[in-house]
Amino acid sequence: MDKKALYNLSYGVFMLSTKSGDKANGCITNTCMQVANSPTRVAISVINTNYTCDLIKESGVFALSILDETVNFFTIKHFGFQSGRDVDKLKDMTLPTDVNGIPYMGWQACAVISCKVVDSQELGSHTLFIAEVVDAKLLSENAPLTYADYQTKVKPQPETKAEDKKIVGWRCKICGYVYEGSELPADFSCPLCGHDASDFEPIYEN
Amino acid sequence: MDKKALYNLSYGVFMLSTKSGDKANGCITNTCMQVANSPTRVAISVINTNYTCDLIKESGVFALSILDETVNFFTIKHFGFQSGRDVDKLKDMTLPTDVNGIPYMGWQACAVISCKVVDSQELGSHTLFIAEVVDAKLLSENAPLTYADYQTKVKPQPETKAEDKKIVGWRCKICGYVYEGSELPADFSCPLCGHDASDFEPIYEN
Repeated sequence: MDKKALYNLSYGVFMLSTKSGDKANGCITNTCMQVANSPTRVAISVINTNYTCDLIKESGVFALSILDETVNFFTIKHFGFQSGRDVDKLKDMTLPTDVNGIPYMGWQACAVISCKVVDSQELGSHTLFIAEVVDAKLLSENAPLTYADYQTKVKPQPETKAEDKKIVGWRCKICGYVYEGSELPADFSCPLCGHDASDFEPIYEN
Repeated sequence: MDKKALYNLSYGVFMLSTKSGDKANGCITNTCMQVANSPTRVAISVINTNYTCDLIKESGVFALSILDETVNFFTIKHFGFQSGRDVDKLKDMTLPTDVNGIPYMGWQACAVISCKVVDSQELGSHTLFIAEVVDAKLLSENAPLTYADYQTKVKPQPETKAEDKKIVGWRCKICGYVYEGSELPADFSCPLCGHDASDFEPIYEN
């Protein structure tokens, strides 16, 4: 089996957010599709180790901001490269809230979909949530960002190696997983998000 | 709720095929995503009235050919605009078969994913299948076709109206549903696939 074949599936890029009590968080995902139109249902898949996944299980509601072609790397980094367990990502951001009281992207997003979970399936690494669409709003005329365009147009090119510093580990640029060791095996895949060695960046000694 | 917001979700375009006994069929879909990587699982959503949906329920296996940018409208029309209940779509096509013996697209596709259903959910208009990926193959270096590119680059522009003929109905160009009547309401959505009036083409009297 050549797992690279699966990389040819097309996706969008989303900021997935939720709020449970006074805990709110958001992360970056690429897996959402409409799965029925009568009644209107979407499905999302979320990595189980994500704090957002825990909070959705608690709250039963989420907002999916569909990021558009104007998104910048700061947004991806802010929501995608740090955990809500360590940082309050929404603290200094004045985001609008949807019908469920969930903060969503008021800019860099062309639409927001507000959802209520109706079913979920544990799938090992991920949880699949099936949800009722309770509201949906167009936010701009901008084209949605595809995951392929994120890879070529938004994600920075790999940094040039700092020759004078020792590499002590490798960080997955997609989910933040850290591999400890100076040499990342060429056939390594991230145990959290499945991306391969080319999506890891070196961590240099201080 | 503005359902047009949901059109901003990004998708690929696929030829979904299966074989149950001596009955083989394929259709065009746009809903597949990887939902877990450990173990490797994908989810697809299929319209319940599709013959392919019935056959997948019988066989428990399917192949997903990821169509690429070289696909032509004939392929979309052949697999997408007629039903396997009326025509044997695979009869005159010499397609390769995958590990499950299912015919897949040997051309106009950049990859094929071979799957075994592990769970399914009835969602009214559609069935959601969760499947184990049992094989995956890269077929070409071509870029996968996105659903957005299908709309602008592959799908023909609407035909000019034949002024001398009476319109007797409207056909959904996405799923083939027929609305009977000369005037299609501007806010009409296809009850099968959810696409709006702009995706319908007139059917003229003979």
